[in-house]
Amino acid sequence: VSGRRYGVGVWAFGNLGDRFLLDGYRPDAPADLETTVRSAAEIPHLHGLEVNVPIHTREVGVDRLGRLLSDAGLACLALGVEVTADARWRWGSLTSADADVRADAIAVHKEAMDAAAELGAGMVNSWLGQDGHDLAFQQEYRASWDRLVEGYREVARHRPDVRLALEFKPREPRVRSMVPTTGMALLAAQETREPNVGVTIDVGHALHAGESMAQSAVLAARYGRLFHLHFNDNGRGWDDDLPVGTVHTVEMLELLAWLRELGYEGAYSLDLFPFREDPAAAIGHSIEVLRGLERLLDRLGGAALVRDLRQEDALKLHRRIAAAMLPSD
Amino acid sequence: VSGRRYGVGVWAFGNLGDRFLLDGYRPDAPADLETTVRSAAEIPHLHGLEVNVPIHTREVGVDRLGRLLSDAGLACLALGVEVTADARWRWGSLTSADADVRADAIAVHKEAMDAAAELGAGMVNSWLGQDGHDLAFQQEYRASWDRLVEGYREVARHRPDVRLALEFKPREPRVRSMVPTTGMALLAAQETREPNVGVTIDVGHALHAGESMAQSAVLAARYGRLFHLHFNDNGRGWDDDLPVGTVHTVEMLELLAWLRELGYEGAYSLDLFPFREDPAAAIGHSIEVLRGLERLLDRLGGAALVRDLRQEDALKLHRRIAAAMLPSD
Amino acid sequence: VSGRRYGVGVWAFGNLGDRFLLDGYRPDAPADLETTVRSAAEIPHLHGLEVNVPIHTREVGVDRLGRLLSDAGLACLALGVEVTADARWRWGSLTSADADVRADAIAVHKEAMDAAAELGAGMVNSWLGQDGHDLAFQQEYRASWDRLVEGYREVARHRPDVRLALEFKPREPRVRSMVPTTGMALLAAQETREPNVGVTIDVGHALHAGESMAQSAVLAARYGRLFHLHFNDNGRGWDDDLPVGTVHTVEMLELLAWLRELGYEGAYSLDLFPFREDPAAAIGHSIEVLRGLERLLDRLGGAALVRDLRQEDALKLHRRIAAAMLPSD
Amino acid sequence: VSGRRYGVGVWAFGNLGDRFLLDGYRPDAPADLETTVRSAAEIPHLHGLEVNVPIHTREVGVDRLGRLLSDAGLACLALGVEVTADARWRWGSLTSADADVRADAIAVHKEAMDAAAELGAGMVNSWLGQDGHDLAFQQEYRASWDRLVEGYREVARHRPDVRLALEFKPREPRVRSMVPTTGMALLAAQETREPNVGVTIDVGHALHAGESMAQSAVLAARYGRLFHLHFNDNGRGWDDDLPVGTVHTVEMLELLAWLRELGYEGAYSLDLFPFREDPAAAIGHSIEVLRGLERLLDRLGGAALVRDLRQEDALKLHRRIAAAMLPSD
Repeated sequence: VSGRRYGVGVWAFGNLGDRFLLDGYRPDAPADLETTVRSAAEIPHLHGLEVNVPIHTREVGVDRLGRLLSDAGLACLALGVEVTADARWRWGSLTSADADVRADAIAVHKEAMDAAAELGAGMVNSWLGQDGHDLAFQQEYRASWDRLVEGYREVARHRPDVRLALEFKPREPRVRSMVPTTGMALLAAQETREPNVGVTIDVGHALHAGESMAQSAVLAARYGRLFHLHFNDNGRGWDDDLPVGTVHTVEMLELLAWLRELGYEGAYSLDLFPFREDPAAAIGHSIEVLRGLERLLDRLGGAALVRDLRQEDALKLHRRIAAAMLPSD
Repeated sequence: VSGRRYGVGVWAFGNLGDRFLLDGYRPDAPADLETTVRSAAEIPHLHGLEVNVPIHTREVGVDRLGRLLSDAGLACLALGVEVTADARWRWGSLTSADADVRADAIAVHKEAMDAAAELGAGMVNSWLGQDGHDLAFQQEYRASWDRLVEGYREVARHRPDVRLALEFKPREPRVRSMVPTTGMALLAAQETREPNVGVTIDVGHALHAGESMAQSAVLAARYGRLFHLHFNDNGRGWDDDLPVGTVHTVEMLELLAWLRELGYEGAYSLDLFPFREDPAAAIGHSIEVLRGLERLLDRLGGAALVRDLRQEDALKLHRRIAAAMLPSD
Repeated sequence: VSGRRYGVGVWAFGNLGDRFLLDGYRPDAPADLETTVRSAAEIPHLHGLEVNVPIHTREVGVDRLGRLLSDAGLACLALGVEVTADARWRWGSLTSADADVRADAIAVHKEAMDAAAELGAGMVNSWLGQDGHDLAFQQEYRASWDRLVEGYREVARHRPDVRLALEFKPREPRVRSMVPTTGMALLAAQETREPNVGVTIDVGHALHAGESMAQSAVLAARYGRLFHLHFNDNGRGWDDDLPVGTVHTVEMLELLAWLRELGYEGAYSLDLFPFREDPAAAIGHSIEVLRGLERLLDRLGGAALVRDLRQEDALKLHRRIAAAMLPSD
Repeated sequence: VSGRRYGVGVWAFGNLGDRFLLDGYRPDAPADLETTVRSAAEIPHLHGLEVNVPIHTREVGVDRLGRLLSDAGLACLALGVEVTADARWRWGSLTSADADVRADAIAVHKEAMDAAAELGAGMVNSWLGQDGHDLAFQQEYRASWDRLVEGYREVARHRPDVRLALEFKPREPRVRSMVPTTGMALLAAQETREPNVGVTIDVGHALHAGESMAQSAVLAARYGRLFHLHFNDNGRGWDDDLPVGTVHTVEMLELLAWLRELGYEGAYSLDLFPFREDPAAAIGHSIEVLRGLERLLDRLGGAALVRDLRQEDALKLHRRIAAAMLPSD
């Protein structure tokens, strides 16, 4: 699709580890933002990056970050709020019962909102990794939801010119996240009563939550709150952050058709964790698949494929799609 | 808890089958409502029944149904809307694209609202089994949601004196249901803008959807829409409708603690499918477990157990609970 | 692939129901075998059918069944053992603690072995739907496994000229099946020490069990026991028996590549449950997808695609596959 | 149960992290083995520890490790083979296509076998975290299984006096593990044809794999290969390594009953990951629950509870169990 903007979160380029290999799978991966930006600039069709506050903004400063990106011909697509990667958030951030921790989490959010304005991104992505619980009898569900909504409201009012996108996730690193589904994210966003609070649909989180990616997008758009998208793939059992199209082909096509029909004009930002794979290859493949699916969609009639859809016709569409993807006799 | 009212959906007494045994596992099960009501009346601590419209109301008539129940000393707790068990609903009911089918589904809902008023239940439980999809490219997510909300709004306005409780479910019989989670059910309820539209939390559906049963209840109560509860159990992989407590003990206790804290005063209605087991035993065991957990909760301090809960103290509570449940040296 | 034989289980043509609609979704579906065979004969590239013993063999008699099929130009690919669809099997069949029930289950198996010889199928598919458990403290795991192995040994020795393929399944209709995975099916087959006992890999059961379909096939072939295959699709959360390719594309291609590499020459038999869809369309689509994937595989080098595979090259292969499936610029 | 030996893997005491917090949740956790052993010695009813080779054996030397443990009054229960926590294993260890990597993995296994003999543990636990795949078209399933079996055979023959226990796991850190289920672990163990190769059943891995923990134990014992057990808990969606009894009560009791019936005399070793919780509390709670369940089992008749179990009686047993656990009127 002409004009479709592809992006990626910079973490994909780093030395990623897990609980069994904390030192990371690619110890020689670049640790600094400058090298990362240069690597990103070489990936075909990559329009921009998603960076984290405060990690990346403090590493080089917001001004210099902006110049780095523009020198590399890349946009800043969104600012991620980083309230996960420090032991101080271990019992929660924005919803913590500890007033100091909560105040700090709000401060990071506001810093991200400011940076988003300054860098022209206009978008903050807020994923609260440490908010939730691991055990029954651990989370005070009522008070923590109060704090969630109040926190987001305060952040949203801080910069009404910047969009604040809540990224739900069913679980991980907590056994159950505070905001696990599209439905709950939309409830929280609506309860703030602020127009600049919406949701990020990470398609891998939607798959893991058992959602239809397309239905989730339609519902978020319905309430005027489909702000941002994260693309990746998984087999519905975990948020594996695999390259797009390595598992799902037909359901991804359905999502793309609906995004056209909804007139979504935001970025298609990749959230990948290529622990062992080459990041450029993982990103490149994902973009190729997304672009290939868009071309496939063009051939199949575009958004018309899902407009006025009738239940009875599903299999006919599947046959048309298969005929367009697979070689004929 | 003194005054806690336990109920059960009458289908638990029937000859239940599945796709591999359509004739049912207990061919000698009673097929008529009178025998069922008599069997139910013998179950200790059973306060009332949930019956389906139009199946049960038309079998004997609403008046006679009311007398049957009162003669047996049982209350009518809720009227279930039956828009699943007929091939005409196969592509959906309230959200069907077929105007006639939709009109019929609305008519059944209104009939249920009327019966709920007449029988003193004041509660209609609406589960839309056939609304959703089996395949990608099958559901027109936008228009079907329009029809969902409009349908419920019309039904709610028909009888503002009766509560209309939406029962979400992740899937089955469709591969993905129209309203799969607590979050989405609450979004639909809110969008109607009618105060008598709320949700039923079937705890087995919540488990299957990966939700915390307690968080779901807290959230529904937050928006004033926790209308009804269905109890059963499963291992989070499917809506098995097993007897309460056969899988989950601690999480069920957490839910009961929160229901006290929330001041929930509705019925604890069982939704069981004892395909092969004796229904009276399945129901009896479920009620015993619920009552036993209530007594356990009494010993542990009641709602105080979850009020002012701190993340750091979860394991301490688990140790207290285990000490109260398991024999000591 | 020239010579690849496609088949389907006859149940796909019937009036399928589920626990919420026991009367079935297509009440006008043909109930008799003759009509079914005629419908099947019209489906392009369909080589043969899988029928059940005793249901179908007794409906028309084994002789007449053979003539019906040959007159229609169809082969009998396998005989399914039907020990599920009657309430007498409700607590198990081959592994039942009731000696009479067990003897009957063995008798049905032997009848199927005989029919398989007579009809030239040479293959019996044994799926024990009712063997397993719904609750903890229900199954005597040790004695039931004894009975499993002894039963299969007796059946296998009854007709050493016929292959007996055990079809594992993680669950349904029991909450947990007796033989839930490829690994357990192979253990049981090996324990019989009979060479004509092997396994059926229903790819949907493998997906639901979290297996790699291809690894399961490789392992079964390793032990000389990959006897039969059932094709369908699902989203890994349940055995939905959807048409092939409606969910998985790349993983299905991987399986087909491995089946070539393994030299598997058996049938590709469809096990579909098109509750609401037209059976001919569901079967036709599945065969088209399988044939299209075979042609795609031809283009990509066939079995060489998985022979000498290196971990490091996976993403390169995915890029080649995507390039061959999706339109280029 | 008198004489039941409880243990724990030493990693539970460390500063545990995950992919989002590589620096760990408890930065002040002790990093050295001496402090860990001292902490462990203070936990009531803890009989011994499970340590890893080469990490822990090289940290202090095998001799000194033995003295540390005996001075603290602790036994060495098993030696874990550590072939996960280094980037060199990233594409696999024992099954790697790289002959050098594979040789190193075998060397580590042999070192563990020697240490197990020297320390009197007599048991090596082998979990191959990095062997498996993340993507389709990544693993050469046939050759990698060859290498798995050959590798284990070589290691087993190195020390026939030490038991080599294969620990299956469905996934993590790879998206799909080489040996994902009890069934596959038993197939591999049997194929080695060495009597000192068996399996470890990590009950959390069994839960995550959808297995019945008890059936898995029964099956492993059937083939004389139930060598070792890891205890923890989770909600069947992931290997959360939570304290025992925080999720499952009844199913854990069923497992304990079967372990008695099987005459299992090995250790009950805890494999916990208390990221945020106090390790001593997590371990202490787990042992208390296991001991409490043993006492509950005593009251209920011990192994007789599962011996001669009849399918029809399950609910009766559940009622007896509930009556023994929950307060009565």
